[in-house]
Amino acid sequence: MSAPQNAFYAQSGGVTAVINASAAGVIETARQHSDKIGTVYAGHNGIIGALTEELIDTSAESAEDIAALKTTPAGAFGSCRYKLKSLEANREQYERLIEVFKAHDIGYFFYNGGGDSADTCLKVSQLGEQMGYPIQAIHVPKTMDNDLPHTDCCPGFGSVAKYTAVSIREAGFDLASMCKTSTKVFILEVMGRHAGWTAAAGGLAAEAEGDDPHIILFPEVVFDPAKFLAKVQHCVDTYGYCTIVASEGIKNAEGKFVADAGTTDAFGHTQLGGVASSLASLVKAELGFKYHYAIADYLMRSARHIASATDLEQAYAVGKAAVEYAVAGKSGVMVTIDRQNDSPYEWTLGEAPLAEVANVEKPMPADYISDDGFHITAACRRYMAPLIAGEAYPEYRNGLPVYVKLKKQLAPKKTGRDFEV
Amino acid sequence: MSAPQNAFYAQSGGVTAVINASAAGVIETARQHSDKIGTVYAGHNGIIGALTEELIDTSAESAEDIAALKTTPAGAFGSCRYKLKSLEANREQYERLIEVFKAHDIGYFFYNGGGDSADTCLKVSQLGEQMGYPIQAIHVPKTMDNDLPHTDCCPGFGSVAKYTAVSIREAGFDLASMCKTSTKVFILEVMGRHAGWTAAAGGLAAEAEGDDPHIILFPEVVFDPAKFLAKVQHCVDTYGYCTIVASEGIKNAEGKFVADAGTTDAFGHTQLGGVASSLASLVKAELGFKYHYAIADYLMRSARHIASATDLEQAYAVGKAAVEYAVAGKSGVMVTIDRQNDSPYEWTLGEAPLAEVANVEKPMPADYISDDGFHITAACRRYMAPLIAGEAYPEYRNGLPVYVKLKKQLAPKKTGRDFEV
Repeated sequence: MSAPQNAFYAQSGGVTAVINASAAGVIETARQHSDKIGTVYAGHNGIIGALTEELIDTSAESAEDIAALKTTPAGAFGSCRYKLKSLEANREQYERLIEVFKAHDIGYFFYNGGGDSADTCLKVSQLGEQMGYPIQAIHVPKTMDNDLPHTDCCPGFGSVAKYTAVSIREAGFDLASMCKTSTKVFILEVMGRHAGWTAAAGGLAAEAEGDDPHIILFPEVVFDPAKFLAKVQHCVDTYGYCTIVASEGIKNAEGKFVADAGTTDAFGHTQLGGVASSLASLVKAELGFKYHYAIADYLMRSARHIASATDLEQAYAVGKAAVEYAVAGKSGVMVTIDRQNDSPYEWTLGEAPLAEVANVEKPMPADYISDDGFHITAACRRYMAPLIAGEAYPEYRNGLPVYVKLKKQLAPKKTGRDFEV
Repeated sequence: MSAPQNAFYAQSGGVTAVINASAAGVIETARQHSDKIGTVYAGHNGIIGALTEELIDTSAESAEDIAALKTTPAGAFGSCRYKLKSLEANREQYERLIEVFKAHDIGYFFYNGGGDSADTCLKVSQLGEQMGYPIQAIHVPKTMDNDLPHTDCCPGFGSVAKYTAVSIREAGFDLASMCKTSTKVFILEVMGRHAGWTAAAGGLAAEAEGDDPHIILFPEVVFDPAKFLAKVQHCVDTYGYCTIVASEGIKNAEGKFVADAGTTDAFGHTQLGGVASSLASLVKAELGFKYHYAIADYLMRSARHIASATDLEQAYAVGKAAVEYAVAGKSGVMVTIDRQNDSPYEWTLGEAPLAEVANVEKPMPADYISDDGFHITAACRRYMAPLIAGEAYPEYRNGLPVYVKLKKQLAPKKTGRDFEV
């Protein structure tokens, strides 16, 4: 039996309410396999930490703090938006990775991210054959955008979905209360520029006729102002008010983002408009209704206080499985969540070759959007409903959720040189 | 002993996450005093329901549904923004009220609202001496703005405060994760135009040096762009990023709302700017930092899922006390919450004459804002911390909170005429 090698773990891309649960899954499971895996080093600010040799020594973190990652949102080790170029385009980066990995005896690479990150993970998995430094690289899926292929869903999405559905339900009750004399149209703008997954999730709150939201605007559907306004008018006539979930990524017939208002603000600076304010102004000008709007932005992806228990469980499970796959000798794969049944919801873990995952975006199925383009279908609800199931509240102290801040003690540098990223 | 008379209850003004708990307090307590109080009629859409004789017969609602009001946000009977004019200015309105109250044998008036509403409640309490229709009128305090005098706090505020503090803490963790390569400045825009209570609440999340939020912008403090930008730069230099809670009501040295961007959107319509987008543009233009912003809007006041247990308890208690006061023969008062101790937090219920409550706005004490104008003081924290204490989660089904929709069965009309509001 060979001596245990160390592992490198990094968080990549936009963080979620449950990505730290995947980190806990990786670290706790690695600690159970100390015969195969030595220290888990976490990249400080993701893969950048590997290039700059800023390696957080997770063995310095207590078992309690690692467990607390399960209830802490965002990326405890720091994440980054940084994509490695191809081997041809930047051989130096890969040589540096190998230099750092070799210096710290790293034989395992766990990368926790989305599609871009899967590409990096794939490249690292090929360091053996391409550059003579064999390393087992396993991708741990994460993205609130739910757009990774081969996996039924992505950890991070279920919690965003729950936040969106809960928020629009609550705002809808507010509108219903006040619409007689006050606001008649409410818009909730949600993140998710490329696909309608996060906007669609709002539709889960509409369990019966008339329930909120009344309208969903998907990036997959060309925004038609006249059709939209007619629908808003219809909702106000029918329900007394109208609630809307709008993706930030909706475009008009010319392919232009509705959010690109191109306005100038009070300080004379060009202002990137928001979808919600554009839609609200349209409604006010054309229909005369009083409006309000909310912009969820980062609140939706960091809302650990309302995380989905299912999402949390899966986030932990994919981290755990990644280590188990590595220990079993696997490399170059992403852990997948494989749905076995809709209701009762059953899922198992599987794997997909990274070559089939990297840089592939899974679009939302066309049959998830209703014929009129303004809501979700039963098929979408069947798919999405289990993902928001269950609550997994953090502990509270002084009325506030207790979120852990790790020590983040860096391992002593060994390469003796800096590297510019 | 006289025969029991009926009661009228109405929700007024902007709704909150816990105003329905006050309704439950009123209705459940009235049911316990059936010797004195007959049916509780709730105004459909607030006081408008009294004028239009749309009286919801709450006796048609099951005990279970009334109890469920404790976990349902917003105004279950409908609220309104509608202030009765003075008796001199519109005698007809008061004659109509008396006509409806007489027709339905209403001897108790419970009004659940803020300062404007307290004025209406006061006028109703004077119907006896002024117009010969004696009625016992008790005000049930409610406002997320926390600006009612004579009461230590206002039901509705604690939950908004908790939402704000939790949200900025979570967003702060997100920023900390990503600031190395991505967003450096985050702004959370909160409602509360006149006073800084709701913005100040965000400060509760900052329990230690460097904690979020780093900056709070209060409507009480003149917005100084240069000073603000210097502070933002300092935070980014010190913490790597900067988190800001901004009141929608901040004004510049000329007294102009920073939110009044006066821009024109993609559709050519004049657009009401938001504080957050104005601030973000300023930061981007002057400091070059990548920014994101969220606008909480109605989400903050309807967020029953993260309501404060203290707030909920007080909301119920003031409704219960209002009925008990009425049964004890009182009128023309508002139920107050009287603080007995900060820590451990102790409070009792009291009363204040409506004449001293109506139309009086309680400002935030000047010593709640730090000397530099960008954060809260220890005094503010001591006052506010108990108000967000405790969680009071609603029941969930299918991953979503279960909120009750009442039958809202209208009592048969008896006056035989319509009334235009």
